[in-house]
Amino acid sequence: MSANNNQASSFNHKKYRAFAPIQKTDRRWPNLVIEHAPDWCSVDLRDGNQALIEPMSPTQKLEMFKLLVDVGFKEIEVGFPAASAPDFDFVRQLIEENHIPDDVTIQVLTQAREPLIARSFEALKGAKKAIVHLYNSTSTVQREQVFKKSRDEIKGIAIQGAEWVKEMAEQQSETQWSFQYSPESFTGTEMDYALEVCDAVINVWQPTPDNKVIINLPATVEVSTPNVYADQIEWINDNISHRDSVRISLHTHNDRGCGVAAAELGVLAGADRIEGTLLGNGERTGNMDIVTMAMNIYSQGIDPELTLSDMDRIISTVERCTQLAVHPRHAYAGELVFAAFSGSHQDAINKCMSIDAEKRKDDPNAHWEVAYLPIDPRDLGRSYQQVIRINSQSGKGGVAYVLEQDYGIQMPRWMQVDFSPHIQAFAEKSEAEVGPTAIHEIFSNTYLNPVHAVTIDSYQLSREGSVDTLEAKVQAQGQHIELSGKGKGVLDAFVKGLSSAIGHDIVLLDYNEHALPSKVGSENEQAVAMAYVQISIQGQRYCAASHCDDIVTASMQALLNALSRSDVSVAKTAAISA
Amino acid sequence: MSANNNQASSFNHKKYRAFAPIQKTDRRWPNLVIEHAPDWCSVDLRDGNQALIEPMSPTQKLEMFKLLVDVGFKEIEVGFPAASAPDFDFVRQLIEENHIPDDVTIQVLTQAREPLIARSFEALKGAKKAIVHLYNSTSTVQREQVFKKSRDEIKGIAIQGAEWVKEMAEQQSETQWSFQYSPESFTGTEMDYALEVCDAVINVWQPTPDNKVIINLPATVEVSTPNVYADQIEWINDNISHRDSVRISLHTHNDRGCGVAAAELGVLAGADRIEGTLLGNGERTGNMDIVTMAMNIYSQGIDPELTLSDMDRIISTVERCTQLAVHPRHAYAGELVFAAFSGSHQDAINKCMSIDAEKRKDDPNAHWEVAYLPIDPRDLGRSYQQVIRINSQSGKGGVAYVLEQDYGIQMPRWMQVDFSPHIQAFAEKSEAEVGPTAIHEIFSNTYLNPVHAVTIDSYQLSREGSVDTLEAKVQAQGQHIELSGKGKGVLDAFVKGLSSAIGHDIVLLDYNEHALPSKVGSENEQAVAMAYVQISIQGQRYCAASHCDDIVTASMQALLNALSRSDVSVAKTAAISA
Repeated sequence: MSANNNQASSFNHKKYRAFAPIQKTDRRWPNLVIEHAPDWCSVDLRDGNQALIEPMSPTQKLEMFKLLVDVGFKEIEVGFPAASAPDFDFVRQLIEENHIPDDVTIQVLTQAREPLIARSFEALKGAKKAIVHLYNSTSTVQREQVFKKSRDEIKGIAIQGAEWVKEMAEQQSETQWSFQYSPESFTGTEMDYALEVCDAVINVWQPTPDNKVIINLPATVEVSTPNVYADQIEWINDNISHRDSVRISLHTHNDRGCGVAAAELGVLAGADRIEGTLLGNGERTGNMDIVTMAMNIYSQGIDPELTLSDMDRIISTVERCTQLAVHPRHAYAGELVFAAFSGSHQDAINKCMSIDAEKRKDDPNAHWEVAYLPIDPRDLGRSYQQVIRINSQSGKGGVAYVLEQDYGIQMPRWMQVDFSPHIQAFAEKSEAEVGPTAIHEIFSNTYLNPVHAVTIDSYQLSREGSVDTLEAKVQAQGQHIELSGKGKGVLDAFVKGLSSAIGHDIVLLDYNEHALPSKVGSENEQAVAMAYVQISIQGQRYCAASHCDDIVTASMQALLNALSRSDVSVAKTAAISA
Repeated sequence: MSANNNQASSFNHKKYRAFAPIQKTDRRWPNLVIEHAPDWCSVDLRDGNQALIEPMSPTQKLEMFKLLVDVGFKEIEVGFPAASAPDFDFVRQLIEENHIPDDVTIQVLTQAREPLIARSFEALKGAKKAIVHLYNSTSTVQREQVFKKSRDEIKGIAIQGAEWVKEMAEQQSETQWSFQYSPESFTGTEMDYALEVCDAVINVWQPTPDNKVIINLPATVEVSTPNVYADQIEWINDNISHRDSVRISLHTHNDRGCGVAAAELGVLAGADRIEGTLLGNGERTGNMDIVTMAMNIYSQGIDPELTLSDMDRIISTVERCTQLAVHPRHAYAGELVFAAFSGSHQDAINKCMSIDAEKRKDDPNAHWEVAYLPIDPRDLGRSYQQVIRINSQSGKGGVAYVLEQDYGIQMPRWMQVDFSPHIQAFAEKSEAEVGPTAIHEIFSNTYLNPVHAVTIDSYQLSREGSVDTLEAKVQAQGQHIELSGKGKGVLDAFVKGLSSAIGHDIVLLDYNEHALPSKVGSENEQAVAMAYVQISIQGQRYCAASHCDDIVTASMQALLNALSRSDVSVAKTAAISA
């Protein structure tokens, strides 16, 4: 082998061989659905830890262990004490400092060699309950190339290891023992041989339905599509001896990006138990991610039997301990996974969430049916504000949502249509995400604070029958203008007066008004009204808004703001006509 | 809805409903394997781009487009021009500046509204070939909550859109058109209704086997295990009209972390074409990752019909354009995915790679069979050095590998056993990855440069028959010592002389020597020898090594270095005996 292999000249599919799936005629798993959570076993402190550039410090290990306990794991693989002094010390610390709750069983991994097994039992001294996890490699490649041993010899290693485990457990009877065996590289092992080895180990351990053994079937390397793995699991499930005394466990990796899928289909195929890590840390491409699989189960209305609501604690602990950041698009946990930038997505989410909020008032178990969001982001401590994100690809729904959530501004639909291009133009110019502050600023500049402002000095309003008479003084560019109008309601009267003053007909097309949350309004803590209008003048439409502690002033001011956005100069025309 | 929803009190699985799979009795896809690559369509510039916090700049879009062309995509969705001015401008730029190779077809997305379709055709003016991708949402939730329209009304939107597309295409006949329709949120749509809408659109477009339409079936949101999606695809595949004139396309997302699995099982179920992105960028959890699926296919000995060998260019371009880092454990592309930290993994990789190198000398298509590595890292421009990583969990195989690759030091097996604890102790103390430089330094300090060095001043060697006579002068802590010995070969003679000088029997247990690559040796560019010895003295074993341009001196010096590691003080004992 040369020391320089950096060139990629070896790209050549011909050197690979297709994985040969087993032939099945009695396949049942595709007809099934997952109906309850499997037993979960975390291997964060073993498989996860051994795959780190910088393995966890003792402090970090304890922090991770406490998180795993709080999340609700009842089985936790805590290390490979015979292979690593820090792992040995950590197991001792857990036991001696009483960190292990009564309902949690720790598990340690060991190879099938006598001194390593002895060292593992030494590490576990004083544990109330423990799982001794024995493994040896059974795959064709490992037998032929790494160990250069026959099938019988490799099986002999497993049997001998199982015997040592049994003997040493008997000598350390203060602990309640469980045994686990993994034919490592199971997916690369001939199925009949994997079965033969597992049966031989089971025969040594002689489990009962009350004292089961764990047979763990690892996809140490993912070698095929997940349905092929499920076929393998179903075949073992159907053929293994003492099935009623065996817990079938899966341990999948992500070499083909399908570790969660393989575990899920494997559960359909009969597995009882899943080994994995929080957010998928582990050798190479990582272990299967228990958070994702548990949340997948949760999203189908099934109790995941893990408490994942404090996702931020999970993320920050995992990131601190592994020194690997969670990807922004990581299922359920990533920063962007509930984010909708597309306008049509935002609009749909907006509508569905309003309906959901109504439904949920009556029934907290009302079914979640929100387009584009497989689960409620609030379940994981995510606020709706984090869902709606605005960039130049975004539409009106999202903008409206942000304004309502952050500023209490309930922009009417007709104004959303008018406002959308303003945001889009800004987003395209800035080529960046447009945050709530920027949206509010654009809203204010566009609708609340026109460049050539016309303001109301005072008004007098009287209503007789259904006719309102309005006398108002407005100010435009330093000029004071008096308006007078009659109409059905104050706005009609104001429009009439204003039309007459400027010499152009103003048509009031739309009008909305609502109270603003007081924090958004003026300093004097009075209730504040926000008014929105759309007018037509000389065949052109103009929208505007205004807020004021007086609902009448707010409305009239909104109308003046709309007028100010037109080409019509109120000051000049009104001054002439006045 | 309140503005403060940050608390996670809503964690409650009862509000979710299990997705109801279709019942199938004629399922065939689990019996199949993928035998050739599907048609690939990149949506990096549309779905990918619209999901970015900061969408790509025009320069970045062009860079991405060129990468996609170079990777070998023949169909590329380049934007949503009717919804975004930058997308419109980019499509115009591609056409007007002639960036589109003759064998590449660009595709644009449009909603089923007349002005948007018209704008899309405007964007495509002058294109040689183009796919107009029409969509509308057909899912139950979208119909009922977002659009508040009946099944017939929603189908009417699709039909009307298809008619507009057909008419406008006829008016712009200089372009060779293909049409694509997506029932958006397909996975959330009743299957019979999805089929009804697709058939209605197909009926408008009247495809032929020579001029097929694309029916794209998006898992806009991933809602169930991937086998359920495959069942849906197989059902549509079996029931769609004009099947011989239709290309069935899949577009999956990762909400349950199974987008690649769903696409793969969907191909087994009959799909012809896959939409996705490089490394999985896209809305929320991202689109399915075409790199992973193509490499999965490649790893089975099938031509992926994409050139992914320059993975570093793909990664750097995607990272630059999306401003999202590729995760270290991302399948095939992540920094750590070929890394093995575990000692037993390293050992197995080491052995298998040596066998592979031998096989490959004779046959470049020799089958890849290396434990823990689904593909040869060199195929993606990764060197073996990046595979073997050392931390406190690592074993001897990896360390030996690094020393050989980086320093030409071919440490014999018996010395690996001796050396391993030194590395492990260092790794445990530093709690960090141990790089090649540190390994070499530990090697040097342990074996080459003992604290109490004994060095060779000169020697005279004569051989008569099979008996060597050695006279040597050595120096220990300033004292000059003369040795004299006879034996079978120089080392035997030296051991005898040394034993006699110190008054203890030295047994030479192991000895290896090899030439070092000259770059590692002395400045005078002579061939340099590296010698390794293991001796036993007073029942204890000591290993050491030495290098020198003289093979005899190298060996004797290695022996002296081993002696220096013992408790025996050469200076004191030898000086007394001399």
